Amino acid sequence: RSRPTCPRCAPRLPPPPPAAAARRHRSLSCTSAGEETVAFCPRGGLAVFPHLTWSVCRVINAEKSEFNEDQAACCQISVRRREPGLEEDEEWLILCSTQFLTGHYWALFDGHGGPDAAIIASNYLHYCIKQKLEEIVGGITEAQPPMHLSGRCVCDSDPQFVEEKHIHAADLVVGALENAFQECDEVIGQEMEATNQTGGCTALAALYFQGKLYVANAGDSRAILVLKDNIVPMSNEFTPESERQRIQHLAFLFPKLLDGEFTRFEFPRRLKGDDVGHKVLYRDYFMEGWGYKTVEKADLKYPLVHGHGKQARLLGTLAVSRGLGDHQLKVIDTNIGVKPFLSCIPKVNVFDFALHDIKEDDVLIMATDGLWDVLCNDEVAHVVRSFLAENRTDPQRFSELAKCLVCRARGKKRGHRWMLDDSHEASYDDISVFVIPLYKREED
Amino acid sequence: RSRPTCPRCAPRLPPPPPAAAARRHRSLSCTSAGEETVAFCPRGGLAVFPHLTWSVCRVINAEKSEFNEDQAACCQISVRRREPGLEEDEEWLILCSTQFLTGHYWALFDGHGGPDAAIIASNYLHYCIKQKLEEIVGGITEAQPPMHLSGRCVCDSDPQFVEEKHIHAADLVVGALENAFQECDEVIGQEMEATNQTGGCTALAALYFQGKLYVANAGDSRAILVLKDNIVPMSNEFTPESERQRIQHLAFLFPKLLDGEFTRFEFPRRLKGDDVGHKVLYRDYFMEGWGYKTVEKADLKYPLVHGHGKQARLLGTLAVSRGLGDHQLKVIDTNIGVKPFLSCIPKVNVFDFALHDIKEDDVLIMATDGLWDVLCNDEVAHVVRSFLAENRTDPQRFSELAKCLVCRARGKKRGHRWMLDDSHEASYDDISVFVIPLYKREED
Repeated sequence: RSRPTCPRCAPRLPPPPPAAAARRHRSLSCTSAGEETVAFCPRGGLAVFPHLTWSVCRVINAEKSEFNEDQAACCQISVRRREPGLEEDEEWLILCSTQFLTGHYWALFDGHGGPDAAIIASNYLHYCIKQKLEEIVGGITEAQPPMHLSGRCVCDSDPQFVEEKHIHAADLVVGALENAFQECDEVIGQEMEATNQTGGCTALAALYFQGKLYVANAGDSRAILVLKDNIVPMSNEFTPESERQRIQHLAFLFPKLLDGEFTRFEFPRRLKGDDVGHKVLYRDYFMEGWGYKTVEKADLKYPLVHGHGKQARLLGTLAVSRGLGDHQLKVIDTNIGVKPFLSCIPKVNVFDFALHDIKEDDVLIMATDGLWDVLCNDEVAHVVRSFLAENRTDPQRFSELAKCLVCRARGKKRGHRWMLDDSHEASYDDISVFVIPLYKREED
Repeated sequence: RSRPTCPRCAPRLPPPPPAAAARRHRSLSCTSAGEETVAFCPRGGLAVFPHLTWSVCRVINAEKSEFNEDQAACCQISVRRREPGLEEDEEWLILCSTQFLTGHYWALFDGHGGPDAAIIASNYLHYCIKQKLEEIVGGITEAQPPMHLSGRCVCDSDPQFVEEKHIHAADLVVGALENAFQECDEVIGQEMEATNQTGGCTALAALYFQGKLYVANAGDSRAILVLKDNIVPMSNEFTPESERQRIQHLAFLFPKLLDGEFTRFEFPRRLKGDDVGHKVLYRDYFMEGWGYKTVEKADLKYPLVHGHGKQARLLGTLAVSRGLGDHQLKVIDTNIGVKPFLSCIPKVNVFDFALHDIKEDDVLIMATDGLWDVLCNDEVAHVVRSFLAENRTDPQRFSELAKCLVCRARGKKRGHRWMLDDSHEASYDDISVFVIPLYKREED
């Protein structure tokens, strides 16, 4: 695939990375059916990042679908102060430089409607993050961000206002990530329109920067810290169920978005003609609780948010409520756009390493829903802790752990079905896992 | 004051309570400057509820303003199955009946722009709650709420759908409270329009019902459980600061609501002409973090949400973002309505007594912001625990504790100022406190 170009955004984006960097940073999991790069794992891919010295990380795809829609990215991000007017340096990713702020970045993208959006996102999101961080670098190098990026006060009590609002450097990084996701979504929209591609993807990005870990999530992937004594969830899933109230509220404010084809109300099941005139359980946008509603004919329409758990759908179409792309997505056989109900804004969680005593086996686990559909946080933490304890001397133990987790979720083939050890059905989705060790993270 | 009437709602509301009940249930704190009902507490009021045997509760107002805008209500709510077509029983509040489900209700209303909305709310919210509970009583008397209120299944697997959605009787009570607040807000709007009154109020309501405590909050009052070993917050405050993103998002969706007079963006301080062209700290609706924005002339307008802490204001006008009333409220000297940005929907928190071992001194504390402005949860809990431990045999100890808390927040007069013991300024706001003992709550 050639690098996506975007007439509007290209001038604002950094120049393309040199060939070596492009190879290093391209999507890791563009294998599709038939490309078996790792023998033990049919139709799977394994990538190693030897240039990342402080953390060994792995992505493994154990897809069973024909095309792998999971994509991944991983790189260092070097942030430097840009002097306006200076020419762009072609070598925009400067590795191991001490003159610049260096961040480490990992991301997973779970595509739907094809891998295209996930591929663009895996190629672009780190550009956007780098760009947004460089725009505010004057603010994050100060102990407390100045009111003015120039650092010159217009008003003597500016520092006091900033302090009152509890604004710290970390808040600027959070803002940069939020803006980067929005920028990346715009790029994807323009690129896919220009090239007539369709589809969307979830995005889960982790950034280690200035002693803090930032996890930005838009979609249903998940990141957790598995520490010696506890598990720290670093993300929440955004699905039609978890964002029901936001989605229903938008339909309440703009009923035309449903074009008379959907009902805004939630019911425990889709209603039938027999229900008309009866009082049935329902929820509207303002309700966390339930009530009873006398069913009218209009309530028989397909519900805006419907189904439960993995079957939950937005407009009968999408299983996630946040992500990138899907600009052109319409409900099948209608002119109803899905995009207005989607959000590309991530929720960012911050973990400050200065406040925690990190142990040797502590890791960050990032994975797409293929893993979490069949393994809960406690099960994953149990695998992590026992595997690392049993393989203390193996220099490849973190990558082996990633393989181990993928294989656990993929299960074993019994006849035509893939089963877990406990005889439950295994994951039929693509599975991608990062295992990122947190100990000695500043060491070479 | 005569009972408010509302042409549209009156037929749906229960008939007025008989005189005795009305007296019992009328607002407790309609004292104004000069009416000193409690000697120790100038311009304050004290009310006792001898008919409520399982809990002694007190409301004390220690206002320093000319008119007390805090209002309170407290009653039993008896919920019975209504047979359609049957004539309304005039004696709609049936106390101590075993034939009906009985709830206990306490509420605080902190008025602004006058006490009118708070008075109507204190007279009406319990009607609305009773009504909404009676509408769903067929659902809450079952172990699991039926899909159809009639209990007759249209679809054999209805119970399975209800179970899948994890719908319990408590969710119906939460839904009833959410709907009751909305109904009460409508009543207030109609009543105040009809009588040419203005103003609004916060609403904090607690309902003890079927072994659970429900706390519904819209505004900046607060309820906490002070238990032997811990403090359980039962509410969150809704202010322009805590709801900034919701408010900014609405202005983003409907810019006309700002009528060109306000800027949607948040800045640490109001911008000045000197800031134009500079990059300053800002947040938009989608940001939890901060970024830098190049200031344009339009950014010099007054901010939609502005100020910090107690000084934070919505449209420069209101200090709360949820509550009842304010239907006619306009930003001074403009035609900009405040109501579109306000929400009347409470957040409801549930505490299940079956899951906790309640001790003798465990209490629910409900109070308006006059208390919480000067005492934090830990300070209140400390006062509660030490006071109750020192006064174990006093039968009036819970009401004495309410007085004690109010006096602590009111401080002592030193010259022209009211000061706390620690020489900080005392609360200048109205102060209302409920102390509700939780032990032996089912006993006569």
